[in-house]
Amino acid sequence: MSKIRIGIVGYGNLGRGVEAAISQNDDMELVAVFTRRNPASVTIKTANVPVYLVDDALNYKEQIDVMILCGGSATDLPEQVPHFAQWFNTIDSFDTHAKIPAFFDAVDEVAQKANTVSIISVGWDPGLFSLNRLLGEAVLPVGNTYTFWGDGLSQGHSDAVRRIEGVKKAVQYTLPIKAAVDRVRNGDNPELSTREKHARECYVVIEQGANAAAIEKEIKDMPNYFADYDTTVNFITEDEFVTNHQGMPHGGFVIRSGESGENDKQILEFSLKLESNPMFTSSVLVAYARAAHNLAQKGDKGAKTVFDIPFGLLSAKSAADLRKELL
Amino acid sequence: MSKIRIGIVGYGNLGRGVEAAISQNDDMELVAVFTRRNPASVTIKTANVPVYLVDDALNYKEQIDVMILCGGSATDLPEQVPHFAQWFNTIDSFDTHAKIPAFFDAVDEVAQKANTVSIISVGWDPGLFSLNRLLGEAVLPVGNTYTFWGDGLSQGHSDAVRRIEGVKKAVQYTLPIKAAVDRVRNGDNPELSTREKHARECYVVIEQGANAAAIEKEIKDMPNYFADYDTTVNFITEDEFVTNHQGMPHGGFVIRSGESGENDKQILEFSLKLESNPMFTSSVLVAYARAAHNLAQKGDKGAKTVFDIPFGLLSAKSAADLRKELL
Repeated sequence: MSKIRIGIVGYGNLGRGVEAAISQNDDMELVAVFTRRNPASVTIKTANVPVYLVDDALNYKEQIDVMILCGGSATDLPEQVPHFAQWFNTIDSFDTHAKIPAFFDAVDEVAQKANTVSIISVGWDPGLFSLNRLLGEAVLPVGNTYTFWGDGLSQGHSDAVRRIEGVKKAVQYTLPIKAAVDRVRNGDNPELSTREKHARECYVVIEQGANAAAIEKEIKDMPNYFADYDTTVNFITEDEFVTNHQGMPHGGFVIRSGESGENDKQILEFSLKLESNPMFTSSVLVAYARAAHNLAQKGDKGAKTVFDIPFGLLSAKSAADLRKELL
Repeated sequence: MSKIRIGIVGYGNLGRGVEAAISQNDDMELVAVFTRRNPASVTIKTANVPVYLVDDALNYKEQIDVMILCGGSATDLPEQVPHFAQWFNTIDSFDTHAKIPAFFDAVDEVAQKANTVSIISVGWDPGLFSLNRLLGEAVLPVGNTYTFWGDGLSQGHSDAVRRIEGVKKAVQYTLPIKAAVDRVRNGDNPELSTREKHARECYVVIEQGANAAAIEKEIKDMPNYFADYDTTVNFITEDEFVTNHQGMPHGGFVIRSGESGENDKQILEFSLKLESNPMFTSSVLVAYARAAHNLAQKGDKGAKTVFDIPFGLLSAKSAADLRKELL
């Protein structure tokens, strides 16, 4: 059987992760990487795979089954996905929750006309967590859904700390609060404030002569990012930072705590514990690239989300083998 | 909008659970219950819903959108599902893993001809656990999948104990072994023997004058059921049995412990903690009844499994609302 031919647009953490994930799937091959940088300056891991300018992608239309777009949600994806959907089946990880409906409509309009399949907002949240929120309320319509994140590195909060004057390096970890998680797992159905659900922990390296106390106060008082949470600030050396805080762990859990029709408590939980957030997100993107290809082969088209994709299409195995081996 | 009209075949624990679950879903209504017993002898909870003989079901073909078959896997379902699929969209919880491929083929042949949709082997295992086994290996192709069951009541093992002479009442609980679960959650990827994964715990009421020591030995040595496990046998009074061991709790977890492409450990877990196994299974059946109806409305047909059903079809909400609220 011929392999599914994948193109990558954007070669940052996510693009590198997609490349690595493709190497774990025998039914796929990486055809090309597209970049906005000078292609000669980009060295990828896979041997004999070319790097091209993103503007030249259209020339490779016939050689690529699915294009995985690995740009950011703020400015890259809202522009790139509708653009590439004119010619390619696409996968993206657009994660600005509030803008998903408009993004879906924009992509769908293009993909319907172009007869392409675009699965949007793929990853773990939005993505696998969303699926479990849906499953929980569909199966247990009477109940509450809780999403906790962490222990994990938050890129946005780390950036916010790094923007403070006198901060040389910083990371911020989001931590689910164990007492709250335990109450939820126990079926108590608590109402939880922002502060009761998650804590924030910062590890900060400061510039020589900077005022640690002032920096700590500025972090803890920062509206939206930290003011509503219990925040711990740890000042550490640059060596310690390099040794212990270079990874990108993340994870979390979605819990549905419901009652079935004769008042029995029923708890459903989906959890992830990830040593590398971008590597896992990439692995999800690649599985959904297979689904996009499968759908396109069947003549389907338009924008889709994880809610529209049967799990069977994520697997390289036949439907008969899946029934035999995994059901 | 008109409601989805559901019929129930078989009014045991599962049928009662389906009735209770329907009452939690505003977009559904119970139309009739079908039984092999004398209908006059069957009293159901829902007011103004008739009970008919199962042989009369065909008379109600036009009034029922989905028939949920609540019989047993040993003899009822292999016969009933192909029979009812001639006229009705169906849902069943067929759970004899080894026979699923042949069962699927038999149902599919009928449903393809009849233009009906039959979703087979619905529940939590097979069912939601199967989905997570598939998801785990699709997203993390390098890794191991572990399924643990419990703490939960095993009907088959309880029956085996009850068949021993001198046993008056008995229940058997399957317990996942915490040390094994912890190693798996930690990403150790252990190879686990049967004995290392689960333990078995029995609560037994004996007949007056029966020999407890002999019964204990007979349980522990029973091949297939207990000999390969560490088994604990507790003899209790009938009062204690009635007070503490009448429920049907169950649950368990599916864990995928994998490595993404740059050797990061990634752990995915799905777990259930259920106060009532049959009530939860029924809730899953009802959610998939909605999906069967949705598929049939779109003109789909044939046998399906949970692997073929996008989660979006499980929900009463529109695709646009799902994207807005849950993605």
